[in-house]
Amino acid sequence: MKRRLLLVSNSTLHGGGYLDHCLHNISDFFGKDVKRVLFVPYALHDRDAYTKTARDKLKTLGYEVDGIHEASDPVDAVRKAEAIFIGGGNTFRLLKSLYDNKVVTEIRRRVLEDGVPYMGSSAGTNVATVSINTTNDMPIVYPPSFAAIGLVPFNINPHYLDPDTNSRHMGETREQRITQFHEEPQTPSVLGLREGSMLLVEGNKATLLGTTRARLFTRGKASVEYDPGSDLSFLLTH
Amino acid sequence: MKRRLLLVSNSTLHGGGYLDHCLHNISDFFGKDVKRVLFVPYALHDRDAYTKTARDKLKTLGYEVDGIHEASDPVDAVRKAEAIFIGGGNTFRLLKSLYDNKVVTEIRRRVLEDGVPYMGSSAGTNVATVSINTTNDMPIVYPPSFAAIGLVPFNINPHYLDPDTNSRHMGETREQRITQFHEEPQTPSVLGLREGSMLLVEGNKATLLGTTRARLFTRGKASVEYDPGSDLSFLLTH
Repeated sequence: MKRRLLLVSNSTLHGGGYLDHCLHNISDFFGKDVKRVLFVPYALHDRDAYTKTARDKLKTLGYEVDGIHEASDPVDAVRKAEAIFIGGGNTFRLLKSLYDNKVVTEIRRRVLEDGVPYMGSSAGTNVATVSINTTNDMPIVYPPSFAAIGLVPFNINPHYLDPDTNSRHMGETREQRITQFHEEPQTPSVLGLREGSMLLVEGNKATLLGTTRARLFTRGKASVEYDPGSDLSFLLTH
Repeated sequence: MKRRLLLVSNSTLHGGGYLDHCLHNISDFFGKDVKRVLFVPYALHDRDAYTKTARDKLKTLGYEVDGIHEASDPVDAVRKAEAIFIGGGNTFRLLKSLYDNKVVTEIRRRVLEDGVPYMGSSAGTNVATVSINTTNDMPIVYPPSFAAIGLVPFNINPHYLDPDTNSRHMGETREQRITQFHEEPQTPSVLGLREGSMLLVEGNKATLLGTTRARLFTRGKASVEYDPGSDLSFLLTH
């Protein structure tokens, strides 16, 4: 399988600028062969402004950016893409727009069959997995399904957050939410990617990158912590 | 309109037991005429345990509790109910179960036409509004619609939370999430009910109760704070 993915937890890390914490990972990932990246800004309301932000940042690495919404035919834009980057924002809006524009199947085909590199951050990481059932976002619009692009056979919870032991707020912790997910007959594995971490997938090999640990939640098992550099390829064999 | 609603932000307040912070409001609301309350435990996985919790607590106020899942015909149970209480948990699971059991329309009819008192807490408050588009919960299951029971013509965000200015976490604040909701052509008003607050609706009169303020978000306007005791009846006239 030619699959190449860079699935980033968060677009911006506290104290830094947009994508600054993973610029070298992006550069390593797209490499020197990629010249143009197709950017998908569907997760934010202002697609032009969002594309300009991504364009300005990726230009510093030497990549040109095309906004998928600038193309007259988005499916054709995916068909011709050298590389794809789906940015963060609201996951429900993003997935609904991917379906509305009929690009879900074509993105899957290009990535899994043609080996087009796929980068996602936050919501763009959620939609790369089995489903958006483990997003943190508010369900501001109703997508035709929660099934996502399905580039990996597990779920991810981006911006994974440890419980705040000083909090007096009674809303569920992130762990309690994932436990509720596991009470339903859904995907058994959920990888909690803390801010600062990302997953690199190359074919059937998966490696945790970044500066923070990740926590894996598997139905019926105790959760497990993984350090940056860990080999998580076993997640791809389900 | 006979409508009578008690819409509570949260089932448990920090430092107290289940429903303790609003027991006197519940007693005032159901009053002396109600003998039995139909409890809807669909938002949690263990319906029997959840019903026992509600039953034990409401018994201290002199009310008997029937779990809707204990009835052979849930629609008939709604048809015969003297009072309805929908408890908190996961809003997506709750709404899906309400649709699966075909009780959405019957609950609406009983409350709006027959004047059956309706109490909701947390997820049970979300489903009383126009839609669940402003829930905080993880979308662990896919309901057939986000449209809810529609007992009031606006949305509520329960467990409303002010931004934590000390946080280094980069996930959206609650206010940012509601702003994203307002970027879509959805219900213009969202009432942010902080933990400790609740809304009492009697016919066309709405009053904020409890111990904390509420924040109203209206599309295209600055948000407004309301103190306990405020008359919010204007929200019912949209």
